[in-house]
Amino acid sequence: MAPVSLAVLVILSLLVKRRKLCKGCLNGVPGIPSPVNFLEEEKNKGLVATVFGILICSLCRVILDDNPLPFLSDTSLQNREYWKILALFYYPALYYPLLACMTVRHRTGDILGSMLSWLHCGILIWQKIECPQSAKFYRFYSLLSALPEISCFIVLSFIYPALLLKNCKGASKFAANKASGRSYCEKYLKNILNKNQQKARSYNPNQSFKPWLLLQSYIYTSQQGFQLPMTLVLSATVATIVVYQVALLVLVFFLPTMQRIQDSIGDDFALMLAGFGIVLAEDKEEVVNVVKYYLWALEVCYISALVISCGLTVAMLMRSLVMHRTNLKALYRGAVSDVFHFPQKLRPTHSAIISWMSFTSYQAALTCLGLLLQQTVFFLCNVFFAFLVIIPLAYGRNLILFKFLKAMWPVLLMMALVVILQHLSARFAFLHKEHLQQEVTNRRILYLLTYLLFPVNFLLGLLVGIWRIVISALYNIVHLCRLDLSLLHHAVECFDPAYRNYCHFLKIEVSQSHPLLKAACFVLLQLLSRHEGQTRNKPTDVEEGIQLMQSKKPVLNKVKSKQARVRWWVAYTLLKNPSLLASRASFLFQCTSNGAQTMSSS
Amino acid sequence: MAPVSLAVLVILSLLVKRRKLCKGCLNGVPGIPSPVNFLEEEKNKGLVATVFGILICSLCRVILDDNPLPFLSDTSLQNREYWKILALFYYPALYYPLLACMTVRHRTGDILGSMLSWLHCGILIWQKIECPQSAKFYRFYSLLSALPEISCFIVLSFIYPALLLKNCKGASKFAANKASGRSYCEKYLKNILNKNQQKARSYNPNQSFKPWLLLQSYIYTSQQGFQLPMTLVLSATVATIVVYQVALLVLVFFLPTMQRIQDSIGDDFALMLAGFGIVLAEDKEEVVNVVKYYLWALEVCYISALVISCGLTVAMLMRSLVMHRTNLKALYRGAVSDVFHFPQKLRPTHSAIISWMSFTSYQAALTCLGLLLQQTVFFLCNVFFAFLVIIPLAYGRNLILFKFLKAMWPVLLMMALVVILQHLSARFAFLHKEHLQQEVTNRRILYLLTYLLFPVNFLLGLLVGIWRIVISALYNIVHLCRLDLSLLHHAVECFDPAYRNYCHFLKIEVSQSHPLLKAACFVLLQLLSRHEGQTRNKPTDVEEGIQLMQSKKPVLNKVKSKQARVRWWVAYTLLKNPSLLASRASFLFQCTSNGAQTMSSS
Repeated sequence: MAPVSLAVLVILSLLVKRRKLCKGCLNGVPGIPSPVNFLEEEKNKGLVATVFGILICSLCRVILDDNPLPFLSDTSLQNREYWKILALFYYPALYYPLLACMTVRHRTGDILGSMLSWLHCGILIWQKIECPQSAKFYRFYSLLSALPEISCFIVLSFIYPALLLKNCKGASKFAANKASGRSYCEKYLKNILNKNQQKARSYNPNQSFKPWLLLQSYIYTSQQGFQLPMTLVLSATVATIVVYQVALLVLVFFLPTMQRIQDSIGDDFALMLAGFGIVLAEDKEEVVNVVKYYLWALEVCYISALVISCGLTVAMLMRSLVMHRTNLKALYRGAVSDVFHFPQKLRPTHSAIISWMSFTSYQAALTCLGLLLQQTVFFLCNVFFAFLVIIPLAYGRNLILFKFLKAMWPVLLMMALVVILQHLSARFAFLHKEHLQQEVTNRRILYLLTYLLFPVNFLLGLLVGIWRIVISALYNIVHLCRLDLSLLHHAVECFDPAYRNYCHFLKIEVSQSHPLLKAACFVLLQLLSRHEGQTRNKPTDVEEGIQLMQSKKPVLNKVKSKQARVRWWVAYTLLKNPSLLASRASFLFQCTSNGAQTMSSS
Repeated sequence: MAPVSLAVLVILSLLVKRRKLCKGCLNGVPGIPSPVNFLEEEKNKGLVATVFGILICSLCRVILDDNPLPFLSDTSLQNREYWKILALFYYPALYYPLLACMTVRHRTGDILGSMLSWLHCGILIWQKIECPQSAKFYRFYSLLSALPEISCFIVLSFIYPALLLKNCKGASKFAANKASGRSYCEKYLKNILNKNQQKARSYNPNQSFKPWLLLQSYIYTSQQGFQLPMTLVLSATVATIVVYQVALLVLVFFLPTMQRIQDSIGDDFALMLAGFGIVLAEDKEEVVNVVKYYLWALEVCYISALVISCGLTVAMLMRSLVMHRTNLKALYRGAVSDVFHFPQKLRPTHSAIISWMSFTSYQAALTCLGLLLQQTVFFLCNVFFAFLVIIPLAYGRNLILFKFLKAMWPVLLMMALVVILQHLSARFAFLHKEHLQQEVTNRRILYLLTYLLFPVNFLLGLLVGIWRIVISALYNIVHLCRLDLSLLHHAVECFDPAYRNYCHFLKIEVSQSHPLLKAACFVLLQLLSRHEGQTRNKPTDVEEGIQLMQSKKPVLNKVKSKQARVRWWVAYTLLKNPSLLASRASFLFQCTSNGAQTMSSS
């Protein structure tokens, strides 16, 4: 394991990669190829998601490592901040060809992509095999933190060959293009126009509340005819990887340190404790055992807190996805008031564009912060619970809480009795049924009790207040990673920066990539290209729009009602999404100037 | 200051009071007189509020003092908890005659009430003059904490004679009864039926947003034709007194201690600090000066935090009152959906009764907790701000924050530049105006920037996350004392115990003391008593209901439209408040069985 040779090798490999980057740039499309059509990409979501996963892994390395860039020697680390800033831009540029090869949509691109991903993957795996241990935090931390990166690269090195195979199988470039863009829009449209499904959907809100429905609302399952947009897929992937990285970091920060402390405890530790006046037991051996037991309990608390917080975060992310889908579907329908409390215009503004650009990274950052906060809070809660409740119950030590309860029991008993008295009297003395409605009776006694119990209710109110503080703090901590709900009261929800970001993001998503709009655009584009005299393989392209509408093969006497419904849907969509109108009008204008005859004849 | 003589005197005074209590009980109404008709009392709200103020002051004494009851000697304080529990019930019983004298509505009651309040007031003032200083917390704490109690007693000893004078002025018992109950209902009804005012009201929501309107919404000013119900007046009074008591307690806990520490700092203190390795200055004299300066800074932080938190709490209480009025008016109108997010039935249930009973005390308890929490948080914030920003800027010490910023400035500058870049590009490069609408353009560059800036946006997201944590925590801490809004997201707001309490409270308040219902009941009761053959002074009582409706003396040709409006109002009220229907039906049934002819003839 010669570090110098490794460094040289990494630098060489980077040079190789860079050459390929230049090739990738000049190949296919002239100029800089767009990294990925975030708003329009329907296929290859997995590929983009893996590249973003690789990016977030290297971002973690940049933030945590002393040496952010692999080609830096130790002497040039004098001003590390500048190198870190450089690294923030270097890694996206480094992995950029991996995306660019895909967007070229050509066999050469696929070949280059496969080779690049194999090379990256090979170098990373070889590097980890050469030196699997690192000095930082924990021996295997470097290896473990690279696991998601390696798996992303492996996935990538399978996706590109698969793409190449698909492209080689004779499907023309146009068909691939069409299939990628059209298929989802078609499915969405078919689903929307399907009468039976609509009935099934509209039946949902009338269902009664059941616990398993609540549980189901926290599990994201794919629905027919709806795909999450690219940005949401990316944010979910990135957030999941962030959860893994943060959990790993939290774990290796704590466990090895605890292990080391446990190993270092000896008889002298008991003396030291005695010096501070803490006598845990009479025997030295026993003191060591007790301290070790306490440390073990701490470890258990820490790990259980980590499990709880990871589980909750993943559940929250899943719930977020469900809510994203619900919100997007509502906005596609035009039901703006179902999503936003205040009327909003679904139209791109400059702040909406900024929010859309930063949505994925905000989701990742909030997941990271939320997990750290949850871990801290749940760890403290677990420690309190273990040391004040479980250990006293099991071993009769640390009886602080129980002593406090013992001193307070008359007051607590009295409060419990008063609560019971209020409940019983309210149920049996102050209510009587009359004319099928419950009415208040015995008002004099009610007023008397209200007055007399005022001081006791004040004490109960203190408990209620503490419960209010606890429950609102817990709720906010658990829901911190969710951008789709505001942590503030709904009257001031626009002051929550994350929720505002989400609202703006939805505006761009809905106004710029509405599936109906996209389907219409594809049909119109095909009409245009046909008019320009290019030959197509399929002669039925023109009628596709109409075929699409009649895909269910209706009975003849139902055609008219179906057409009416289709028109109504279009009108409704345009009415509720005025942003579509502009695109539609402009397209129509273009079409009429170019091919008015084609339009009228078809 | 002989403590024994004082104890004997207090016991004697209590005996006197108790004799009066028994007198009060047996006088006037047989059995236990109702303390106060919380739901129906319209006049004398001030009297009830002062008694509750006295009660909350004595509750504070009970919680804080070692000796909860004045007649206890020091030897019987072995099991203090039991005495405290007893005191929780003793004080309401002790001040109960002060309320009972008012509800008797008789001259004797007023005389007794005056004498009782004078006696209480005299004893308390004499007691404080005899021994104004106490050993606990601070010399004058006992005196200062008794100030609201004394002022309440003084107000009380003016109210009772005033009541007596009013009663003696020849107004009969019935008229007083009627005036107290009727006047507000009449006013409310007149206000509701006044066409011009309605227009003015309906115009409000269309007004544009102005800062002074926001400020105005935090200041409670009385509105014509609407009075807050008794319970809300009580809760506001009690909460204000709680703010005073808690602020006083917080102040005397801290300031004398700090003063004592400041006095005890000498040259040896510098040596002690040097022993811990802290060298604030080279000269001993200077070290003492620096430490004294720091302590003074701490004091300033503490007092400013107290001022801020008291101001915020009072503002929140005022805002609560405004919201209570808005909510009550909406519910009186029947606009349930304006107040509750989910449809609720305005009908008394057993949990609603419990919530109604405990509303005032919960408000007081939450105010207390909220103020304490705010004080802690703002004090910490002030200390951080003073010691990390102001003192470094002024004296060049404690440069921790500035050193951190200096180390981080390249990253921070880069992040600021990226934000500016995003804003500029979003405004000028990615948006162009077309057909009066802004559309997204230059998509390729937009996607490229989105991809390249992903790591930087992640860092920005961390800042946004921290801001989200800070703002939601501050919001919840400041709004903790407000029961009229939920601290949880609106989908789970019913899990907030305080907000649920408020919702239930509103249900009882609206269903049981709707002004229209009360007005109708008064008219019907008068009809009944007239039918039973009792002579009344005023012969026009029967037509009062109709006069009430026509109090504006309309032009003849407008009578019909007015009648139609009146009928529509009644129908609308009944439709939206089905709970009124039961009372109405039952009353009508009773009336028709007793006096069908009277009804038909009038």
